[in-house]
Parts: sequence; structure tokens; C-alpha cells
Amino acid sequence: MRLDLWTWKEVEKYLVNCKGIILPIGSTEQHGPTGAIGTDAMTAEAVAREVGIRTGVLVTPTQPYGMAEHHLGFPGTMSLRSSTLQKLIHDLLISLVMHGFQRIFIINGHGGNIASIKAAFSEVYNTASSRHLPVAKSLRFKLANWFMSPEVFRQARALYGEREGQHATPSEIALTLHLEPSLLAKQSELPDPAPAGPIYTYKDFRQRYPDGRMGSDPFLAKAEDGEMFLDKAASALSNDLIDFLKET
Amino acid sequence: MRLDLWTWKEVEKYLVNCKGIILPIGSTEQHGPTGAIGTDAMTAEAVAREVGIRTGVLVTPTQPYGMAEHHLGFPGTMSLRSSTLQKLIHDLLISLVMHGFQRIFIINGHGGNIASIKAAFSEVYNTASSRHLPVAKSLRFKLANWFMSPEVFRQARALYGEREGQHATPSEIALTLHLEPSLLAKQSELPDPAPAGPIYTYKDFRQRYPDGRMGSDPFLAKAEDGEMFLDKAASALSNDLIDFLKET
Amino acid sequence: MRLDLWTWKEVEKYLVNCKGIILPIGSTEQHGPTGAIGTDAMTAEAVAREVGIRTGVLVTPTQPYGMAEHHLGFPGTMSLRSSTLQKLIHDLLISLVMHGFQRIFIINGHGGNIASIKAAFSEVYNTASSRHLPVAKSLRFKLANWFMSPEVFRQARALYGEREGQHATPSEIALTLHLEPSLLAKQSELPDPAPAGPIYTYKDFRQRYPDGRMGSDPFLAKAEDGEMFLDKAASALSNDLIDFLKET
Amino acid sequence: MRLDLWTWKEVEKYLVNCKGIILPIGSTEQHGPTGAIGTDAMTAEAVAREVGIRTGVLVTPTQPYGMAEHHLGFPGTMSLRSSTLQKLIHDLLISLVMHGFQRIFIINGHGGNIASIKAAFSEVYNTASSRHLPVAKSLRFKLANWFMSPEVFRQARALYGEREGQHATPSEIALTLHLEPSLLAKQSELPDPAPAGPIYTYKDFRQRYPDGRMGSDPFLAKAEDGEMFLDKAASALSNDLIDFLKET
Amino acid sequence: MRLDLWTWKEVEKYLVNCKGIILPIGSTEQHGPTGAIGTDAMTAEAVAREVGIRTGVLVTPTQPYGMAEHHLGFPGTMSLRSSTLQKLIHDLLISLVMHGFQRIFIINGHGGNIASIKAAFSEVYNTASSRHLPVAKSLRFKLANWFMSPEVFRQARALYGEREGQHATPSEIALTLHLEPSLLAKQSELPDPAPAGPIYTYKDFRQRYPDGRMGSDPFLAKAEDGEMFLDKAASALSNDLIDFLKET
Amino acid sequence: MRLDLWTWKEVEKYLVNCKGIILPIGSTEQHGPTGAIGTDAMTAEAVAREVGIRTGVLVTPTQPYGMAEHHLGFPGTMSLRSSTLQKLIHDLLISLVMHGFQRIFIINGHGGNIASIKAAFSEVYNTASSRHLPVAKSLRFKLANWFMSPEVFRQARALYGEREGQHATPSEIALTLHLEPSLLAKQSELPDPAPAGPIYTYKDFRQRYPDGRMGSDPFLAKAEDGEMFLDKAASALSNDLIDFLKET
Ligand code: NI
Ligand code: NI
Ligand code: NI
Ligand code: NI
Ligand code: NI
Ligand code: NI
Repeated sequence: MRLDLWTWKEVEKYLVNCKGIILPIGSTEQHGPTGAIGTDAMTAEAVAREVGIRTGVLVTPTQPYGMAEHHLGFPGTMSLRSSTLQKLIHDLLISLVMHGFQRIFIINGHGGNIASIKAAFSEVYNTASSRHLPVAKSLRFKLANWFMSPEVFRQARALYGEREGQHATPSEIALTLHLEPSLLAKQSELPDPAPAGPIYTYKDFRQRYPDGRMGSDPFLAKAEDGEMFLDKAASALSNDLIDFLKET
Repeated sequence: MRLDLWTWKEVEKYLVNCKGIILPIGSTEQHGPTGAIGTDAMTAEAVAREVGIRTGVLVTPTQPYGMAEHHLGFPGTMSLRSSTLQKLIHDLLISLVMHGFQRIFIINGHGGNIASIKAAFSEVYNTASSRHLPVAKSLRFKLANWFMSPEVFRQARALYGEREGQHATPSEIALTLHLEPSLLAKQSELPDPAPAGPIYTYKDFRQRYPDGRMGSDPFLAKAEDGEMFLDKAASALSNDLIDFLKET
Repeated sequence: MRLDLWTWKEVEKYLVNCKGIILPIGSTEQHGPTGAIGTDAMTAEAVAREVGIRTGVLVTPTQPYGMAEHHLGFPGTMSLRSSTLQKLIHDLLISLVMHGFQRIFIINGHGGNIASIKAAFSEVYNTASSRHLPVAKSLRFKLANWFMSPEVFRQARALYGEREGQHATPSEIALTLHLEPSLLAKQSELPDPAPAGPIYTYKDFRQRYPDGRMGSDPFLAKAEDGEMFLDKAASALSNDLIDFLKET
Repeated sequence: MRLDLWTWKEVEKYLVNCKGIILPIGSTEQHGPTGAIGTDAMTAEAVAREVGIRTGVLVTPTQPYGMAEHHLGFPGTMSLRSSTLQKLIHDLLISLVMHGFQRIFIINGHGGNIASIKAAFSEVYNTASSRHLPVAKSLRFKLANWFMSPEVFRQARALYGEREGQHATPSEIALTLHLEPSLLAKQSELPDPAPAGPIYTYKDFRQRYPDGRMGSDPFLAKAEDGEMFLDKAASALSNDLIDFLKET
Repeated sequence: MRLDLWTWKEVEKYLVNCKGIILPIGSTEQHGPTGAIGTDAMTAEAVAREVGIRTGVLVTPTQPYGMAEHHLGFPGTMSLRSSTLQKLIHDLLISLVMHGFQRIFIINGHGGNIASIKAAFSEVYNTASSRHLPVAKSLRFKLANWFMSPEVFRQARALYGEREGQHATPSEIALTLHLEPSLLAKQSELPDPAPAGPIYTYKDFRQRYPDGRMGSDPFLAKAEDGEMFLDKAASALSNDLIDFLKET
Repeated sequence: MRLDLWTWKEVEKYLVNCKGIILPIGSTEQHGPTGAIGTDAMTAEAVAREVGIRTGVLVTPTQPYGMAEHHLGFPGTMSLRSSTLQKLIHDLLISLVMHGFQRIFIINGHGGNIASIKAAFSEVYNTASSRHLPVAKSLRFKLANWFMSPEVFRQARALYGEREGQHATPSEIALTLHLEPSLLAKQSELPDPAPAGPIYTYKDFRQRYPDGRMGSDPFLAKAEDGEMFLDKAASALSNDLIDFLKET
């Protein structure tokens, strides 16, 4: 169910029966001294593809760059300004709407993207309505943050307790270890992390969280946990998506 | 040499010795009745990674969405407006510049992106200079379109003659067959394509090129040709990149 | 503690001892068939001024217009696009930062503003840093939604149960009755509201929630409840603000 | 006639008989060492409400922030960039137009807003026409600057002569004293002001007009003058508004 | 004194002694059934060049396109949106400021440009200050509308009385006849014009002023009057410019 | 065939028979120590007017300012940011489209404008389609860079060989000498130029090409060569334009 591996003819056929589509989005940002910079994109993509398989809903390519301004103090982070991300979401959604897609389900792997995506939704509704697009009235966009699914959240707390933390968490790192076994080699024991706290400027962030972790101990992560998180997230989001498509 | 699989610590070390980086960009757009919608991203990514391996230069994640406005008449195409793409390029380049990268080499898989990328370069230079960034003066950005490498071009003409065409070309399709063998199943003989010609609005495009091909016969594509194109492109672009990094 | 009633000389003196300031923001939008269109601005302003009195922190004028796109199906709603609201927040915060304010506490009365305000924060941090403003590193912005204070939430549930609903709620209406007794005359018994649910386009909203209410029964609102909510909200937010100003 | 105290049902009824509405706008900026920072918003609001009462035309909430870039050298000034103010005016007017309002009368309290409001008008006409809004052709926007009404101007000259000046004028301060008697306590005799002159950057402004006054002596202001100015302004603008609504 | 005929070396020398420069701007818009579409650019350019000769101040190329949205109902009108014109003015002024120009005198031939130019000034001051440009503090921009010079205004009234009107006026047409004698052939007696009045949308404009004239009788124009207006305008603006350059 | 010398009535008549129009664009930028800053505008205008005469196609005023960011290190250069230029092109083209023009032929005199113009085309097509303009489907825009016509290119190489260079070339300077004989006085023998090479930031440009020339020897330029280049360019572009208008 990967749009990038389909032809336009296949999409045309798909649209006869289903107006729903999944759009995964991640971020390219530091994930602590041992976590992969691509963590958020990798995990969102894996969850999205698994949801696609389970529900039969088409999955677009993963947008690998998101709003990661607060991580810019760490080399390798690549961030879109929030306004740019909003325009990107706007254009991608409008493209899909032009083809007749009416229920767009964004699977997001990064907390920093949430505000921008929600803000963008209102802009797309405005555009669709301003242009008098035939489907304007029936458009529905929904944001699903896989790492915030109650099931995932609960399991992460059960496995890691307080050491789950808030960034570069063992749960997301576990998922990357499952997806990309080569990352195992980077795992290493780490000193106690800075405690989780607020997020302001990127300079403040670096000072407050000197190695990039917010209260997390990613060394706890195991590939098999990651597999389980993938299953939990895909299961929860598949249900949400099915409900979303059934909504009248 | 994949940034998404590195940690920020690894990037920090890399930057001590090398200020160069590769950013691949594609597009998500129709590629005729048998070609994959993700062709341009897949091919740009493959070439970029191969160039990364050969040169030891770091490769960022592939931006899968580009400027494909003229393909919006075909379902599945997802396009950024040119202005959005320019802002995206701007923000990604500024992020890299903030970390100390000074020579950024964009490997592009889609003709429709060229103007936007070039326009964005001038905006980034302006921003870097307006912000008095320490590296502002020494920044250098270069755009490399793999499908326009003289070697690739020559081979494509040699193999397919006029039937190479200008969109959904056998050369790019061949590369996707090499990268993703499952795509072979979509290949099928096609009627004569509309002849290549100009590009205006997306409605005109659809009327002028009813199945999305511009003078091309992608049925000629063979996976082994694709492998060869990958080698030719990687070889040519590796040389260009090495020259670019050596420039004083 | 109202900025609009102060002179610049008084602000200058204030800044010697305190770098904190409160910025109230509301919305101008339908609040059901009996609720005032200015509800969100009125309530945010009242809470902000009360917090100002209790904490001795200066309060700026209330921004009465926010992001209310989904309410545009009802006459009288005046909405800023999310992108406009973000620019407004950006400019106001930058103005304050230029004077040396470092801790800005936004007291918000409308759920629809949240994403835009958060998105704007990242843009302001970026601007402050790009301009090398001396205080850039130590800037801190915090968003406080008075109606989401746990105490307020709990009391609203205790008083109104399920009939609190999600828009034009008895709790916010109660506060307006306390502030503006003339509004009492508009109160009237209403039929059962449409059940609370999702928010998409403004046309969908009007169809889904025909009289503007989302599961709420504002006829339950009493002025004395409003007084109590004002006290609870001011108390909770005063504590949050004091903590915010004390943060190192 | 205050929109913020009305329900959407009341607005719906109003629109049956009248397509006109008043939108007051001020600014939050220094008004000399003794004048209130909220002067321009307070005065515009008072005039607008009085015009509303006299003409029976609905009055929207007052936009308290305007374009005050040149006052940013004085603490407490909060300015929107001109481009932001234009977008704000655009969105508010479009909102009103969507509901069927066709004659929008802006009552403005600040000279620095004039260019932005006029520029915004052309953008709104463009948008209304681009979106093929049914009322696009019959839209009419009018800007009324209360302090420039010939009657007000004449009286100010009669009372204060040259000492009226150009910013923090006794006439506007008088009106604030009438509206907010507590401000009387801030009045004090002041040294001769810097003579009125041109306006360039905010740094130049502060140097040229060190205490914020441009040739004015606000100590001359009396609350009873303010009451008279309110009457004169409301009378003049009510006539203008009535003519505007009668225009065919 | 034409920048377009100078080399950069000559500009470099000029800047040693003078930091002032003139920027002419017009519009490309209908000027009634007999007036040239290029009237506003032609006249602004002629006045600017004459002022340049009389004062020894350098004159940049004439920006021929301005904000003419309300004339778009007439074929041949080419308009920039106000926001575009503001960006253009911004970029041109910033370019000049980067070279060390500090006093920029805009000679404008079109009323519709005024708000946009004034709004742009505030944006340029903001940019110069945000970028910490060394000359930021001493920058001064001034707008001069040649057709509003008291001398020109008086003479036009003296010659044409009420028939001067407000658009496609005999005074501006006279100047074009002086500059471009071939235009004489287009002159012809015209019916009574629609009376001058307000300006709203371009459709309203066309209906209100069916042949494009606002109360004017351009048939009264004589080339020799035009020569006189050029002299009056150049004389008045030269004085203004000299004062502007002398300002401390 | 100059739009600026026509009335709107004449344009109205013209549109009955022809939907084509020519828009010339140049740049205002350094052209070496002896070349005129207005070279690119002067040459584009001359070619455009000559093409207009030969083909009977209307010519709009010349946009004298383009994207010349990389030349900003030399006094006198006035540059629009690429994003501004795109908006300008957008608005001018939309204006023409509103009148019914359907084939717009841009004659460009400056390489730095190319990306911006192409990027703008896609935005205009998007706007025309979003607004459901009746002619949206049949719009066609074409960019013609006179200096890149094969005939011009060949002749320049024949006359000047390697000394043609890439900026401030003898061919373009020759054309300015033909058009403006006074420029002859500026010609002088120059030292060997810096060799042509890449273009990055404006500071790098100035260092790399200290007198502004990129490998060119403008002293070779002769007015009679310029006349010949004008003829070659006009001839080539007239053919292109005729083909463009004939296209079905
Ligand atoms: Ni993450
Ligand atoms: Ni392709
Ligand atoms: Ni509310
Ligand atoms: Ni004032
Ligand atoms: Ni005119
Ligand atoms: Ni040139």
C-alpha cells in the first residue's frame, strides 16, 4: 500500500472505493548521543506502513523533515520553520484533495510537529473553501501521534518507568533497533540524563539537556520491545483510522 | 554515510574533517501508466547514497516531495508549490549552515525542481549574509541533476534513441527496476506516446500527454540498464562533488 | 497592572525589577444562540487582570481576535487565519523582547488559538536568535489556557457534568454573566445540544452543531459560578506564573 | 451595539436590515511621559461606540495593536509590522464579508495605521474578487481617522494652538482623561517638547523626540475637553457613516 | 545623473560626496479613452530626471509598475498587489542602503502607490535595524508625489478648474504630450466625464467611471502646459530634496 | 507597439485579434568598470521593441529591476530578492490574463532572472486554475533569453572568442553602445579579467571577480556589432514568438 510504488492508474482505481490516505511525517533531529537522527521519520514510516497493511489504506511517502527548531543546537538536526512546515502540509493536502481524497490521516513521529500540523489543517480548510473545491465541505483531516497512543504510552511506562523520559525515549529507540539492527552497535550505557523539563530556545535546550536527552535512558531499549511498540501503535492507529473512515 | 542513521556525536566528529554534505531531493508524481509515482525520489536517493559511499560524504534524508504542479492532473501526484519548495530548501540549508556545513551538494531527480532550487540558493545566501553568519562568505551550494549528467544522457540516447523521451523515461524507470524489482510486474507494452513538447498548466499537460508520458517508451527499461545508469551517474556526480569540495 | 493605563516611564521602572508580562488573548466568535460573541476575549481578559493583581505582573491589552475559522459559518464570527495570528503573536512578542521582557505568559481563552500560539513561539525564538538579540538565549514564553486549568476543569465537571460540553460551555458563559450582568437577559432554555465531536471545516461545523453549541447547556450557567471560576483560574494561573518567573 | 455582547442570532437578524458595521482600531504605544500607552485604542473605541449608539450601527471589538514601529524605542510600545497589520485587517474584513457585511467603516485612532489599512483594502477587494464572492462587486470599505475630523482639528487648534503638536496631543489625552479619570493622576507639567518633525527609524525618533512627544503639551488636556472632542468626533463620523451607508 | 548609464565605479565615486538618490516610480494603467497607459511612469521619470539635473542627485531607473488594482477593469492595466509593491520597494531600498545610500527620495507619479510606499518604509527601517546595518539609525526615506506639489496643484486648478478631475487629469496628460508628441494624435473631444468620487473594487470603478476618467477633461491638455508643469514640479521637488539632504 | 503609449481602447481592439503580448525584463546591476548598470534592461527593451515591430505584437513596459543578489557587492546594483521577483512576475501575468491575454512571451536580458521567472510561471498557472479563470486551461507563458539565442551566441563566439566571457560581455555592451552612443566614452582598455567561474554569495563574487567582469573583455565591443546582435536576436526571437502564437 505504498503510493511511491504505485502508478497513477492504480491510484485512480483505488479512489473509486476509498477516499482515505495515510501521510507519515517525522523529523531529522538529534536523539541523544546514541540515538539515530532519523528516529522520528523511521518510526512514523514503519507505523504508517503497518497501519496501511492492516487497513488496506494507501500510504504516501514519509516527509522526513519537520519542525525541530529547538534541536538546532546539536549538529545534524535539520529543521523546517513552523511556517514552512505548515505550507508544506498545506500543499500536500491540497494535492490529495484535488484528486478526490477526503479523509487524510497523518501519522506523526515528532511532538514538535503537532502545532504546525494542526495550524495547517485550518489553512487547508480555508483554501479548499475559498477555491470552491467540490469536496470542500466533506474534507476531514486527522492527526495521529503514534507515540501518544494510550497503549504505547502505558507499555513504555510499564517497561521503563520514569526513565522513558520525553526525548530520545527508550520506546522510540527500541523501535529503531527493531527496524535497523545496525543501530544496536551505537547503544551504550549513559550517565544519568538531565531531568525532563520545558522547551524554549535551542540554546537554552542545549544547556538544559547537554547530551540531547530529556530524562530518558535509551540504553534500556531492546529491539523486541520495539517490535511490540510497532504492533501496539499499529493496532491502536488502525482502529482510529477505521473509525475515521467510517465516520459519517 | 546516512545522516539518518548517525548520532549527533558522529556528525560533530565528521565536521572536524569535512564541511561537505549531500542532500537528495525527488518528487512524488505520475510517471506514466506503468511507472512508479516515487521514481524521482527513489532514483535521487540511490544515486546520492552511492555517491556518498564512493566519496565518503555524508548524505541527508531524501526530500520526497518537490515541485510537480504540472502533473497534478494525474491522481497520486503530490506537489509543493514552487514558493513552498524554496522555503523548504532555504530552511534545510540554513540548518546545515548553522552546524558549520559550507559546501552543500543537492542531488536532484526531477527537472521541475531545478528553478525552485536555484531560486532558493539566492535566498539562503541572502539570509546567511543578513544574519552575519560567520561562514556566510564561504558558503557554496551546488545543484546536480543526475539525469542530466552527460554520461547518463549519452547512454540513454544510445540505448533508447528518441524513445528516451522527456518524462517517465526508460532510463529512470530502468533505475527503479534495479532498485525495486517488484516494479517489474507493472511493466507492459504501451501504445506510442504523445510526442515530447512544452509544459504549461496541468490541465493542458493531461490533454497533451494523456497517459503522462512525454515521448518516452518505458517498456524498453531493463533493470540491468538501471544498474549501469546508477554507476554512470554516481561516477559522474562523485567527480563533480570531489571537485566541488576541492574548490578554493 | 494594566499596560494600557501606564506611561512608558512607568514601564521603564517596572522593567528594573521584573522581566515578566502577561498577554491575554481571546477570540470573537459565536458562542451558541445565547452566548456572547466576545466570550473568549472577555474571560481571558478578566482572568489575566486578576492574575496581574494577585501577582503584581503587568498585563498588556487583550487581543480580541484569534483563530476561529471553524466558526465562520455563524454570523458575527471574525477570524484571523492561523498564519496571520502567528505573525501577530510574533510581532507582539518581539516588541516586548526588544524592551527587555524575557518571560511572557500568554493567558488564552480559546482552544482554537493553541496551535497557532505554539507555532508562533518557535518563530519568535528563531527571530530573536537570528537577530542576535542580547536576551535571545534567556527568552521564555509560556501558554496558559485558563479553561484547561485542572481546578477549573474539575469544578466544571462537578457542577455541570456532561452538559459542560466543549464549546459555549456553562463555565465560560457563567464567567461572562459575572463580568457583564446585562448578558443574563440573553439566557434561555435551549433544546438538547448536538453531541460534542470533531472539528473540520466551518460548513461541516455548522451542519454538525446547528446552533453552535458542542454538547453544552449554557442555560446552567450562573453568575456566581462565574465568580468562582474566575477565582479558581486566577489562583491556578497565578501559581503557574510565579513558578514561571522563579524558574532559573 | 457591541458585537462582543451580541449572540450570532442577533447578528443574523441585524443583517436583514443593515449591511454596515464599524471596526475600531487603535495602537499600543508610548504617549509621552504622562500619557497612557493605550490612548489610541481607548479613544478609537470610545468614538466608535458613540457613533454606534448614534447611528444604530454595530461595533466590533477594538483591535488594540497597530503599526507603531517608530515608537519601539520606548518601553511598553507593542507594534505589529505593517505587513502583519495588513493581513489582520484582511482577515477581519473577509470574515465580515463572508457574513454579508458590505459597508465596513474603520474608526482609527492612530496615524501610523493609515497606510497599512489603505493597503489592506486593495488586498481584500482582490481576494473577494478572486474568490468570486457574491458580494465582491458591491463591497465598500472606508477609513475614518477620528482625530483628523475637521471639527476636531479646528477645536484642538482653538484650544491648544501650536501646543496641540502631533503625538501625545492634548486633544487625545483629554479624551482619555474623560474616559479614565484615574489617568488624571499622571498629568504633570512638562518641559518644552521637541518640535514636531519627520518620522524615520525608531532610534532616530527617540533621539529626535526624547520623551516621546512631538511638539505637544498634554498638560493642557482637561477631561471636559475630552468629552467635547468625543462629541465632535462622534458627530462628524456619524454623519460620514450615514452618508457612506446611503451611498448607492 | 542616470544610474542606468553609469558604471559601478562612477557610483562608488559619487557616494564619497553624496548619500542621496532619487527613485522614480509610476504605474501602468488606463488613463481614460485618450490617455497613454504609461502616463504615470513617463511623468514620474521626467520629473525625476529633471530634479536630478537641477540638484546633481543620481536617479535610478523608473519602476514602471505600481499598485493599480482598481484600474484592472480596463484592458492594458498591469498591477502589482500592494504586498508585492511593498516587497519591491523594500528590496530596492535595502540594496541602496547596503551601498551606503542614506537619504532616498522617491518621486511618485501615481496616487495608488502612496499607501504601499509608506507601508514599505516602515518595513525597511525594521529590516535595517534587525540586521544591525551600520547606517540603520541614520536612514531617511521620503516620498514626493509630483502631482500633489502645491504649485502644480494650484496651476492645474487655475488652468482647468473643476475639469482637472482626479484621474487622467489634463495636467498629467499635458506632461505626456510634452514628453511624447506622438500622443497628441490620440487627443479628442470627450463627453462629460463621470464625476469624481470614491474608489472601491475594480468592477465598481468601471461601472462608476465607465471610460476611466474621474471628473477630468484631458482634452484641455496642451503640451506647453505640460512643459510648465514639469518645471513647476521639478522646481518644487528640487527644493524639497535639497532640504531633505541638508536635514541634520 | 508600445503598451505604455497606447490607450485602453486600443488594447481592447488589439485583443480582438491577438492574445499575445511581450514583456521585457532586465536588471539594474554592475557590468564591469566600463559597462552601464542599466545594460540588461536597455538590451532587453531594445530587442523586445524590435520583435514587437517585426511581429506586430504588443510590448509592455520593461521591468528594469531583477534578481541580482550576487552583484550586490558593487555599488549601484539594485536587486529584488528572488521571491519578490516571482511575486512581481505573478501579478503582472495575472493582470494580463484577466484582460484575456493567453500567450505571454517574456524577453529577458539577465541570466539571474531565469530561475525566478520559471518558478513564477508555475505559481501563475496555479493561481489561474485556483481562481477558475475562464482562460486558465489555455494559458501559455514562454521565457526567451535574447543573449542565449543560438545565432547570437554563435556570432559572439565568432567575434570575441573566449573573451566573450559570461558577464559584462562584449556582445551585450556592444548593443548598449549602439543604443546609447554616449556610453562609448566610458569604454577603455582593461586588464585581463578574472576567469569565468561559479557564482555563490555576493561577497565571494566580488572577491572572485574584483572588477565585476567574468572572463570578458568589453573593450572589444563595437556599436555596429551591437546593431548586428540586435538584428540577430530580434530575428530569432520573432521566429520563436510567431511559432509560439501559432501553437495549437
Ligand atoms: Ni523522537
Ligand atoms: Ni522522473
Ligand atoms: Ni469560548
Ligand atoms: Ni495617539
Ligand atoms: Ni495618472
Ligand atoms: Ni548583463
